[in-house]
Amino acid sequence: MAGSSIGTIFRITTWGETHGKGVGVILDGVPAGLELCEDDIQGYLNRRKPGQSKFVSPRKESDLVEILSGVFEGRTTGTPISLMVRNSNQRSKDYGKIKDCYRPGHADYTFDQKYGFRDYRGGGRSSGRETVGRVAAGAVAAKILSQLGIEFTTYAKEIGGISIDRNVFDKEEIMKNAFYMPDAKAAEKVAQYAQQMIAEKNSIGGIVECRINGVPAGIGDPVFEKISANLGKAMLSIGAVKGFEIGDGFAAAVSNGAVNNDDFYVNEEGRVFKRTNHSGGTLGGMSDGSEIIFRTAFKPTPSIAQMQHTVNTSGEEVEIEILGRHDPIIVPRAVVVVEAMAAITILDALLVNMTARLDRICEFYDR
Amino acid sequence: MAGSSIGTIFRITTWGETHGKGVGVILDGVPAGLELCEDDIQGYLNRRKPGQSKFVSPRKESDLVEILSGVFEGRTTGTPISLMVRNSNQRSKDYGKIKDCYRPGHADYTFDQKYGFRDYRGGGRSSGRETVGRVAAGAVAAKILSQLGIEFTTYAKEIGGISIDRNVFDKEEIMKNAFYMPDAKAAEKVAQYAQQMIAEKNSIGGIVECRINGVPAGIGDPVFEKISANLGKAMLSIGAVKGFEIGDGFAAAVSNGAVNNDDFYVNEEGRVFKRTNHSGGTLGGMSDGSEIIFRTAFKPTPSIAQMQHTVNTSGEEVEIEILGRHDPIIVPRAVVVVEAMAAITILDALLVNMTARLDRICEFYDR
Amino acid sequence: MAGSSIGTIFRITTWGETHGKGVGVILDGVPAGLELCEDDIQGYLNRRKPGQSKFVSPRKESDLVEILSGVFEGRTTGTPISLMVRNSNQRSKDYGKIKDCYRPGHADYTFDQKYGFRDYRGGGRSSGRETVGRVAAGAVAAKILSQLGIEFTTYAKEIGGISIDRNVFDKEEIMKNAFYMPDAKAAEKVAQYAQQMIAEKNSIGGIVECRINGVPAGIGDPVFEKISANLGKAMLSIGAVKGFEIGDGFAAAVSNGAVNNDDFYVNEEGRVFKRTNHSGGTLGGMSDGSEIIFRTAFKPTPSIAQMQHTVNTSGEEVEIEILGRHDPIIVPRAVVVVEAMAAITILDALLVNMTARLDRICEFYDR
Amino acid sequence: MAGSSIGTIFRITTWGETHGKGVGVILDGVPAGLELCEDDIQGYLNRRKPGQSKFVSPRKESDLVEILSGVFEGRTTGTPISLMVRNSNQRSKDYGKIKDCYRPGHADYTFDQKYGFRDYRGGGRSSGRETVGRVAAGAVAAKILSQLGIEFTTYAKEIGGISIDRNVFDKEEIMKNAFYMPDAKAAEKVAQYAQQMIAEKNSIGGIVECRINGVPAGIGDPVFEKISANLGKAMLSIGAVKGFEIGDGFAAAVSNGAVNNDDFYVNEEGRVFKRTNHSGGTLGGMSDGSEIIFRTAFKPTPSIAQMQHTVNTSGEEVEIEILGRHDPIIVPRAVVVVEAMAAITILDALLVNMTARLDRICEFYDR
Repeated sequence: MAGSSIGTIFRITTWGETHGKGVGVILDGVPAGLELCEDDIQGYLNRRKPGQSKFVSPRKESDLVEILSGVFEGRTTGTPISLMVRNSNQRSKDYGKIKDCYRPGHADYTFDQKYGFRDYRGGGRSSGRETVGRVAAGAVAAKILSQLGIEFTTYAKEIGGISIDRNVFDKEEIMKNAFYMPDAKAAEKVAQYAQQMIAEKNSIGGIVECRINGVPAGIGDPVFEKISANLGKAMLSIGAVKGFEIGDGFAAAVSNGAVNNDDFYVNEEGRVFKRTNHSGGTLGGMSDGSEIIFRTAFKPTPSIAQMQHTVNTSGEEVEIEILGRHDPIIVPRAVVVVEAMAAITILDALLVNMTARLDRICEFYDR
Repeated sequence: MAGSSIGTIFRITTWGETHGKGVGVILDGVPAGLELCEDDIQGYLNRRKPGQSKFVSPRKESDLVEILSGVFEGRTTGTPISLMVRNSNQRSKDYGKIKDCYRPGHADYTFDQKYGFRDYRGGGRSSGRETVGRVAAGAVAAKILSQLGIEFTTYAKEIGGISIDRNVFDKEEIMKNAFYMPDAKAAEKVAQYAQQMIAEKNSIGGIVECRINGVPAGIGDPVFEKISANLGKAMLSIGAVKGFEIGDGFAAAVSNGAVNNDDFYVNEEGRVFKRTNHSGGTLGGMSDGSEIIFRTAFKPTPSIAQMQHTVNTSGEEVEIEILGRHDPIIVPRAVVVVEAMAAITILDALLVNMTARLDRICEFYDR
Repeated sequence: MAGSSIGTIFRITTWGETHGKGVGVILDGVPAGLELCEDDIQGYLNRRKPGQSKFVSPRKESDLVEILSGVFEGRTTGTPISLMVRNSNQRSKDYGKIKDCYRPGHADYTFDQKYGFRDYRGGGRSSGRETVGRVAAGAVAAKILSQLGIEFTTYAKEIGGISIDRNVFDKEEIMKNAFYMPDAKAAEKVAQYAQQMIAEKNSIGGIVECRINGVPAGIGDPVFEKISANLGKAMLSIGAVKGFEIGDGFAAAVSNGAVNNDDFYVNEEGRVFKRTNHSGGTLGGMSDGSEIIFRTAFKPTPSIAQMQHTVNTSGEEVEIEILGRHDPIIVPRAVVVVEAMAAITILDALLVNMTARLDRICEFYDR
Repeated sequence: MAGSSIGTIFRITTWGETHGKGVGVILDGVPAGLELCEDDIQGYLNRRKPGQSKFVSPRKESDLVEILSGVFEGRTTGTPISLMVRNSNQRSKDYGKIKDCYRPGHADYTFDQKYGFRDYRGGGRSSGRETVGRVAAGAVAAKILSQLGIEFTTYAKEIGGISIDRNVFDKEEIMKNAFYMPDAKAAEKVAQYAQQMIAEKNSIGGIVECRINGVPAGIGDPVFEKISANLGKAMLSIGAVKGFEIGDGFAAAVSNGAVNNDDFYVNEEGRVFKRTNHSGGTLGGMSDGSEIIFRTAFKPTPSIAQMQHTVNTSGEEVEIEILGRHDPIIVPRAVVVVEAMAAITILDALLVNMTARLDRICEFYDR
């Protein structure tokens, strides 16, 4: 079915395979009047580019984005924005050997079961390259949100079991190390562990944390369109994601009500705040005005160069080694994908929230 | 916005507040020809009824469901099925005292911020009573799925930090103890801990685990409509849920590729299986034919009888005690809600999957 | 599939069959703060009640609407509003004779082909009684729109080929005659013709015209969500409708550009207007600030008491006479259905339009 | 809002402006396994190309389509198909003069009112060039439908008030004359009338008729997703369309029940048919197995070279002459657009219909 779109009012549709002609995204429902050029998007895309350290894929992808529609004289017109990145540096022959095999941990088998066959080159549509469209769209959403005072801080919280120390959290550090960690020492430990795992032709996973500041209270809708539910869906739709939690998340399940409830208080200016933030910035599925904080768990990259046991399309058991230039750790490049999907989700929720109250609708239409 | 519906082809829309005239659900897109009567639904609803042990709310709710449409001569007709449960046993006066307060951990504050005011009686729409519609709809979905050979096993995996022992897993036990745990000893420990917490006017949370067997491979769609993403959204849309994980979930983030990848093999009948199931039954967002297994984390019930500090609607700090008949542990009654939402999600994915391949469409239309 | 809902942000879902327990509708996405009680809805429902003249069905239906949710202390809360009308005065036995026949002009055959069987009593879901939910929802939409200065004038423009004289258009007259025509003389002629057709056990059709004033310019979206396209879909979704046109409609097809183009001018207050309104109030799918005017063509009631030739479910040719208490002319009772569907469509378009411009979004969120 | 998509399971999203970098479409939900190459699509696109006769725009557009994704080794993979046509031959300077004017009959004014400004070059997104994406998508839909035995016959039924003679209907003739009329004599008369109107710098409209054969009974859904309602929306979403009717349409409104009802009979093979087809192939919103036939009314091209009176963006009244290379008659090039939108609508309805009956779902999943 049509499963390549997400969002209600601000809606994106991605397309493309890793070894096809290109990848892209249509952004529909972008408000008119936003100043937008390729550079706004390119900055985001560069954060997901491979080849930036020895811990990620050595592929060189130029990944230059082209705006094909929806922008006129430097501003968005309200019509759909089509963004495309042409593929290059494709080494399809790397995949010829495995075209008849079901790689463990990959979607080869499920694609064949669903569709009868698949574009086997590099995973086709299930490749991480599919996230180019997400990141490009997220760049536009984030730019709009920044004008509404909403900012994101996203980073690797844990890789290969090595976690950051929250006491030394350094926001500036995030962009300085190869792992996008806000803790230089943790990043160093990860580097050592990763080296070792790479040497063993193995791979590791990790956890990405995202904090969103400036979201006004009341965003999200009760019942099925909770902001937490939509953030969860957005994250779990990213390849390799196996878990999502908001606020204290799974730790809340072992807490108790007296501890887990966040008391309200009134500050000197008479505004309502919470003393703690176990809830992670949402109550009843709507933002509560405090920082939204959530975590997303990534499994280890399934493409490993070790010999693995599997089955081929003829139903025979075989051994395979996965060649190609893969990311031993997917987490560093996933950080910006998480942020992009969060921005897309928050923007859509902000837009639909404009219709919640009759008095504000009357005001909008000047009645 | 319209946030009370979920699903694409099989789509449910819930309505109702805990202290209004009733709660209900419309099921649209139910295939024609299913034998259905109130009893099919009542059995599910009884699993979420309060008053069944001292560990949940002592309220007595008869919760008798009425089928108002869509069934003729005992079978579904393909038109929308409207199900209603009239409310009774409402003690709205319990809530008079807190109508001007923002209860910590509840949605009172966010409802007011979004809509300008709220139905304060018992939490209104954000009450757990909203799940009646979900469970009634889930009963119908589960009945259809059982005819397709798909079965659910759902239970409390952990409450208040006390986990089941997987080695003594006893499916029969689930329906025998007050906590829906598949381990009688663990349930006993939980009973003791819960007693203590109740005495302290406190509350506890926990984790519900759901296993789904019989889902054919290839269900779910790549990119945004992954079966894992939709299960995640469905779970995170349940009140009090703070986390979701599938397969090894957050534990996968500390694993490595060599361990986490599930090898494929061929059994004696020539069918393809996986030797392990770290992925939890999905690869690339599509079911892989093995058991789907996921967990949902519930926070402790926010309604506690301890004195709490908060703010009232006039912006003054106040102390409150929450009266009313609340569940000290929400998890036991949430088990069936998790199962219901899973059934709704899986059925919708199965239906949309029918259009994935041209050859099967041609066969369907006999060309 | 789920086909009983319409709308994006303001979304309604109807349910119910004519001879089941009742009919109803869920309104989701209703803005909070609207004063609403049963009387607001009842007035609209009374306009579609049968038994009000000899030209429509003599059935007596009390059609009392009950608000089941979404309203608290007299105001909408922003949560879904569930409205129900219990069925009464059902004479199912009238239908026993035809349960095995495919009535010409009815949906009996197509329901059986699609679903394998049908609720044959009174047409079940395809009965005109299905419009109760539409009209109840339209009453709520129209009340909101009236607060935004948007008003509807809806009437029978033509019945049985007898058209109103636009030169004697009398708005007050609409509610005074049995046909809801704004021309007393035309109504009289229709009465005579209708008498004759009733005597011949025959039926007639007609055209309903709707004028909408006060819609600001820019409502509706380019391409697929044109306001004209959505009005058309809303009208063509009403049973018995065979045509829709906006502005000059089919007459525009025989006009020429020099005549059909509406020139713009500036009035004394400096506001832009069109000198003519051939376009019917829309340009490029968006409202242009002038009156929106459209027409909907209804076929003659298919239920006629004449002997008709048809086929039964065993595949034999048979003769049938349709008993029961049917409307010889469906148009009078359809007038309010047209208005209701128009109100639902316009309100949804107004709400989604709030997100069109970034400057107004920033203003809304006070940045 | 996101208004550039249409369809539920087979869903298309168009993008692009006439004087931007290109136009395109994403087709999501295309079943896997369809043989598809650019030529399949190019044939359809060629039918809407300008410059093919003196009665349409003399612009030369190469309109070569490129498949960017979703096809592998000549077959669709089930993933989104991205199609693009690069723009060329843009003479933006033609539009410089009118960038500050609101052309009568065009969407200039409404775009400005909605979005605050607009891409004024050639109408931007509201140009007829937007239909390239629709036609490309329709080509794919039509190819799938042809494999299911569904065929379209689409032609100009009337231009400038000159109608075809149904008695001389000649299907072969449609592709032979400049107007896509199935009646050579009528086409000749139109040619004469059109010549005269062109000489007068005027334009004309017309009616496109579409017949669809081979649709099985039961396609479409009751209530809001009637096949007639969705065909109506699809047609009314095409620029310049002012009316839609199915079967006898507006003529049904002046008919009577005895005449308008289509009697059923059984043929020699025991299959059920209708003796007449006043309904146009649908009953109760579902296909009835007979030919689906509908008409779409197009207004005269608003771009005329005559001097016209209008208003500029500074609110002053001005005179304008519209230069550029416009179609004096839009109908010939609209024929294929109507067919494309019909194919898109029918295919989506066929796909969602697969889930209507439980017995067929069980059969599909082999239970």
